[in-house]
Amino acid sequence: MRTLLLAATAAFALALPASAQEEPKEARAPSEIVAAAPAADWVAIPAEDLLVMTLAPDADGSPRQVVIQLMPAPFSQGWVHNIRLFARAGWYDGISVNRVQDNYVTQWGDPNYDNPEATGTPKPLPEGLKVMGEAEYIDVIRAAGPDEDTITLWHPKPDLLDSYADSATFDKGWPLGIEIGEGTRVLRRWPTHCYGMVGVGRNYSPDTGSGAELYTVIGHAPRHLDRNIALVGRVIEGMQHLSSLPRGSGALGFYTAEESAKRTPILSVRVASDLAPSEQPSFEYLSTESGAFATYAEAIANRRDPFFIAPAGGADICNIRVPVRRVAE
Amino acid sequence: MRTLLLAATAAFALALPASAQEEPKEARAPSEIVAAAPAADWVAIPAEDLLVMTLAPDADGSPRQVVIQLMPAPFSQGWVHNIRLFARAGWYDGISVNRVQDNYVTQWGDPNYDNPEATGTPKPLPEGLKVMGEAEYIDVIRAAGPDEDTITLWHPKPDLLDSYADSATFDKGWPLGIEIGEGTRVLRRWPTHCYGMVGVGRNYSPDTGSGAELYTVIGHAPRHLDRNIALVGRVIEGMQHLSSLPRGSGALGFYTAEESAKRTPILSVRVASDLAPSEQPSFEYLSTESGAFATYAEAIANRRDPFFIAPAGGADICNIRVPVRRVAE
Repeated sequence: MRTLLLAATAAFALALPASAQEEPKEARAPSEIVAAAPAADWVAIPAEDLLVMTLAPDADGSPRQVVIQLMPAPFSQGWVHNIRLFARAGWYDGISVNRVQDNYVTQWGDPNYDNPEATGTPKPLPEGLKVMGEAEYIDVIRAAGPDEDTITLWHPKPDLLDSYADSATFDKGWPLGIEIGEGTRVLRRWPTHCYGMVGVGRNYSPDTGSGAELYTVIGHAPRHLDRNIALVGRVIEGMQHLSSLPRGSGALGFYTAEESAKRTPILSVRVASDLAPSEQPSFEYLSTESGAFATYAEAIANRRDPFFIAPAGGADICNIRVPVRRVAE
Repeated sequence: MRTLLLAATAAFALALPASAQEEPKEARAPSEIVAAAPAADWVAIPAEDLLVMTLAPDADGSPRQVVIQLMPAPFSQGWVHNIRLFARAGWYDGISVNRVQDNYVTQWGDPNYDNPEATGTPKPLPEGLKVMGEAEYIDVIRAAGPDEDTITLWHPKPDLLDSYADSATFDKGWPLGIEIGEGTRVLRRWPTHCYGMVGVGRNYSPDTGSGAELYTVIGHAPRHLDRNIALVGRVIEGMQHLSSLPRGSGALGFYTAEESAKRTPILSVRVASDLAPSEQPSFEYLSTESGAFATYAEAIANRRDPFFIAPAGGADICNIRVPVRRVAE
């Protein structure tokens, strides 16, 4: 069933063409709407969901730190369990970035595992990892819908939704593709491969990956990977340290043996809740259930700030980036 | 009108759900389909449409060359005229990359023009530039549709087309957004801001930019810029030299005064047809009107090669990248 009804929420106005709206048009830039959002619309991210990844300093000696937000239930929790376990075992310390493929992904892990340029013995895996089979994989990647029987659509054109799913929406701060059944019933939902999302490298199915090898999207959203690879989080700070690395010239962007000096060392990966309180970073996201977010999404789809001549009247899910901010200590 | 009929072409199969097709499923990867395309499906790109941009060597002393394909009529020809004129006047020689904004654009031009960090006097512009006004701007960016009254749709789901236009298609090697009128009449069409596309920097309207300042997309397609900025071409070789540059820490990704050493110098920009024949690069694109391209696009939308578990059943226009190859001398 593709007949969709809009939930009667703040997002409702999004379904109306701009000319049919009687309210004054929102002329603020999306960034201004976010800056003016009330404090109550921001949601703290638990320290248990933050990974702090420290890369070797750059060529100028400047430090490079990346913060990753892990995905909450019901998505990919087996892999998220493994990732915390790898981090707490110190297993990630000393691995490296081994693959940078332009307009696709930056990938890090043991340079001697799943790397066409490997020359040594893979690092032994820690005890206690969950092994996900293909059946669990598909079930977990495509989580069941919520109990409510309506959804909130974010696209201003209700008949132009998503090229990769029945529709797309947001839930608790995450962009999701959805499969729709009777009426507006969400049958399945899954996170989407937007810029900066973090996923689990794997070999051919039935391998599903352990979490030893991770990647982040550094180009146009490769949404064809949705439901094919487990997404486990997103980079919320320091993305430039992963997106601006030199591209590998080997197959799939792996660094060749001659380029091994280009592999960026990863010094450590820590779960933020394990750090001393004074060293724990704090972040918040703008609630995707808030009025401020609805206003922000509508403004992205209908840019009326001064630079624009022709507002698009629509936006794709990956261009409606969920605002995340660091909270000063 | 949003009622669309499909042209009876090789693309027709795209409209059918995979299960309704009786032909054997295409199990090759998109790259294999391109590799097997017959020679007759490849179209030579005129040397007059190629710009060869030479950046200063990188920190290791390796050369960095970027090749840009300029856009053919009917799109943006005033700016394309200017760009050839800038190149032939040697005006671009000695300018620099001044802005690198993560997940957005890399922009190059005179560091003393339209740059919040400018400290000197802008370079005088050459004689003979066309100045585009806002009316011409809108007309030229949104070219009239072709004479034929049918279009070829590339999306396998005919009701899930494009978030930024009535639909999207390809014409003579370029991705286009389209506005549709009665039946399948294309009223307007315009190039889309996909990864690697090159556009003309401008100030607030009615300024439309001259072509002195150019940018390329280095992240998720900022399609909201479609019909707002003139697109003039795309990077067809050496994109990694622009996408992997250090991000600027100033507003909009401009390099701050303290970071001026990060500005990558542009040594020269030449129209390929002006080079000695032995130095002229040759490129071809896969005809977007060919059967091989239709097969390729269908395979992108329905990945059945071994890595995939769940084919998407769709693709967005920016993930169906037009194959371009260098022809050996």
